[in-house]
Amino acid sequence: MVPRVIRLDLEYEGTRYHGFSLQPGLLTVQSVLESALVTIIGEPVRVTAAGRTDAGVHARGQVVSFRTSARLPVTAVSRALNTRLPDDIVVGGAAEVEACFDARRSATRRDYRYSVWNGSRPNLWWRRFSVHLPGLLDVDALNEASIALLGRHDFSSFIGQAGAESGSVQPLRSLKRAEWSREADMLHFDCAADAFARHMVRNIVGTLLQKRGRRTISAEDLRDILKARDRRAAGPTAPARGLTLMSVEYPAGSADAEAQES
Amino acid sequence: MVPRVIRLDLEYEGTRYHGFSLQPGLLTVQSVLESALVTIIGEPVRVTAAGRTDAGVHARGQVVSFRTSARLPVTAVSRALNTRLPDDIVVGGAAEVEACFDARRSATRRDYRYSVWNGSRPNLWWRRFSVHLPGLLDVDALNEASIALLGRHDFSSFIGQAGAESGSVQPLRSLKRAEWSREADMLHFDCAADAFARHMVRNIVGTLLQKRGRRTISAEDLRDILKARDRRAAGPTAPARGLTLMSVEYPAGSADAEAQES
Repeated sequence: MVPRVIRLDLEYEGTRYHGFSLQPGLLTVQSVLESALVTIIGEPVRVTAAGRTDAGVHARGQVVSFRTSARLPVTAVSRALNTRLPDDIVVGGAAEVEACFDARRSATRRDYRYSVWNGSRPNLWWRRFSVHLPGLLDVDALNEASIALLGRHDFSSFIGQAGAESGSVQPLRSLKRAEWSREADMLHFDCAADAFARHMVRNIVGTLLQKRGRRTISAEDLRDILKARDRRAAGPTAPARGLTLMSVEYPAGSADAEAQES
Repeated sequence: MVPRVIRLDLEYEGTRYHGFSLQPGLLTVQSVLESALVTIIGEPVRVTAAGRTDAGVHARGQVVSFRTSARLPVTAVSRALNTRLPDDIVVGGAAEVEACFDARRSATRRDYRYSVWNGSRPNLWWRRFSVHLPGLLDVDALNEASIALLGRHDFSSFIGQAGAESGSVQPLRSLKRAEWSREADMLHFDCAADAFARHMVRNIVGTLLQKRGRRTISAEDLRDILKARDRRAAGPTAPARGLTLMSVEYPAGSADAEAQES
């Protein structure tokens, strides 16, 4: 029998999880999802995710795919998953897609949002999904600087952990969006790229939010940091809880345009 | 030395707590708050709250008061509390008020909000602050019925636990607001009274959301339930997590109009 490829659209709150990817002995989104899938499909399943979110990072529009020879209708898979998954993971839709579809390799764009609560007091209701920075932040200045990152660059300075070597990751990435906006006291940084390397969004945010004396970082500063191709030239890694994977794009036709409703 | 009366404005997420009031051996908002106050003020403190919220109920505008002969400036109390309190309790302001002020006895109006997520799939981001009811709810019909509750009534049918006797609580209450609204798939029920009895808001919500066959409950049904003066005539108690104490009103002059900023 020809195996089918199923696409799942997932939302999750990352607070409790050691990230998306399997890690021996640790609770991860993938381990919880695959355990639920086995009980439904009756055979072991290995999923691939568009964004391998780190510990504490959330997702509103994560996409995963897996191959299976089971014959269950996809709507049944989605419904059954939602009754088995814990309440911090929700399947938004399931669809059968082309045999060549792979949630990770087929993706052409990932959109992330980083949220900063800029009120004077902590925000109880959004504390799991934002970081609290009380001093007034200048969105216009942040946007003027962020523009320097747009386009295709060697992002070595923004890849990996602070103080560490950048390692052997392919550092050429195309940043398609880098935009701050303010909703009352909540700031959002929306950014998109063909693909992000580990910690890249959080390193960009941590660098943008670092003060240079009393001023916000400038486009000039960012160009210098890019040129350095050295992680030590950039700022700290912003905390995970402010980051959410918002959506993933695929070429038209490679996946159903709309995931079927569960 | 003359003891002063201090008013604190509090926000908290009730998820972790066994309600506001002290209970031996259980984690409550009051126990956490009083423990923090002792370390700051250096003497045991007993607080009084405007709304003794139940286990799992949240507050955006809880007001508490306490007497103390300590001489600390109120702004210092507020700041010191916020560094000592866990991240699900925030002091929004502190103020020295008239000696006769009592957060509970002086209050003339309490506003509560009950939130119902009416989308087809669970809402991950608001799941701690709302209940999920997927079938489409008719806000207009709910509002037409709710009007029957406005005004001064004997609310015995809506007081206490489902199936139990109403007990000896004073059941005459003046309902000043009972209003449903919809923001996309989120429904809010805003209601206000001079004072609410135990479980009263949740019993009203549980009753309003009960179907009579296929139709929403009517104003006529509610009038009959009020007349019965019997808890068994009303519906179930809606879950705690959808309920938030929004604000408390006091007569002008009895408390500072605005709590001083922390």
